[in-house]
Amino acid sequence: MASHDTDILLVEDDPQDVELALFALRKSNLTSLIQVVRDGEEALDFLFCNGQFSGRSFNHPPRVVFLDLKLPKVDGLQVLRELKNDPRTKMIPIVVMTSSAEQRDLQEGYKLGVNSYIQKPVGFDAFQKLITDLSYYWLKTNQISSPPVAARA
Amino acid sequence: MASHDTDILLVEDDPQDVELALFALRKSNLTSLIQVVRDGEEALDFLFCNGQFSGRSFNHPPRVVFLDLKLPKVDGLQVLRELKNDPRTKMIPIVVMTSSAEQRDLQEGYKLGVNSYIQKPVGFDAFQKLITDLSYYWLKTNQISSPPVAARA
Repeated sequence: MASHDTDILLVEDDPQDVELALFALRKSNLTSLIQVVRDGEEALDFLFCNGQFSGRSFNHPPRVVFLDLKLPKVDGLQVLRELKNDPRTKMIPIVVMTSSAEQRDLQEGYKLGVNSYIQKPVGFDAFQKLITDLSYYWLKTNQISSPPVAARA
Repeated sequence: MASHDTDILLVEDDPQDVELALFALRKSNLTSLIQVVRDGEEALDFLFCNGQFSGRSFNHPPRVVFLDLKLPKVDGLQVLRELKNDPRTKMIPIVVMTSSAEQRDLQEGYKLGVNSYIQKPVGFDAFQKLITDLSYYWLKTNQISSPPVAARA
């Protein structure tokens, strides 16, 4: 199992959702290793170790990415497409979290290889419970793969 | 959202694991719509609506498949490969549940597009809790996609 400098990458541009998610995660004591990025470009930079994240390594992927769909610069489905098309990042579990109930987004998400697709609930308590449930599942229950040897060069 | 004749397809050849899983699911009251198949060929027949399952329809996929890896006739990774390579079945969430701790299986599972990968715990109570957690997550938290239009013909 690889070591991690980040357990959860949260890709979210809504400041209120970020604050609620961080509050829920702190309260759950599941992890303190959370990185927040606010748009799709920054998410890609983080995961492909570019730009401000060029010091990162493919050897230490997050255990899960919580990905909003409606994002500035590069939208969530495009982020998902790029991650799932590259052998260096394909194995990172991606959970789409969206307020969209559009069947088209759901279909496209699964077509692109999303690991799980979540509709954000309305209300603080429900959102907090969701974040706790998601984190428990993806940090404690799910097993992740070490990066493929080719990505470690 | 599509209607379902099966919520969970359990692909498992170990009679004790089947019994424990069914016991946990009955106790959790999460669903009564469980189909058990005992080898990879039967799993493919179920999901591709062939053989004894030719009366089924692609319009009613299960909400999740719990897939063992070491299976008679067709092994679990081959079942996963065939499901994720076909647009009619690609969108069905597949959770590998295995007693194998082999990193090679994990990597191959993610490479083939598994949605989640779980290592079976040792002991009845831990296994029962796992089945309940998994079912809660994939039946209640995760959203699934309707089958693509092409699969409805």
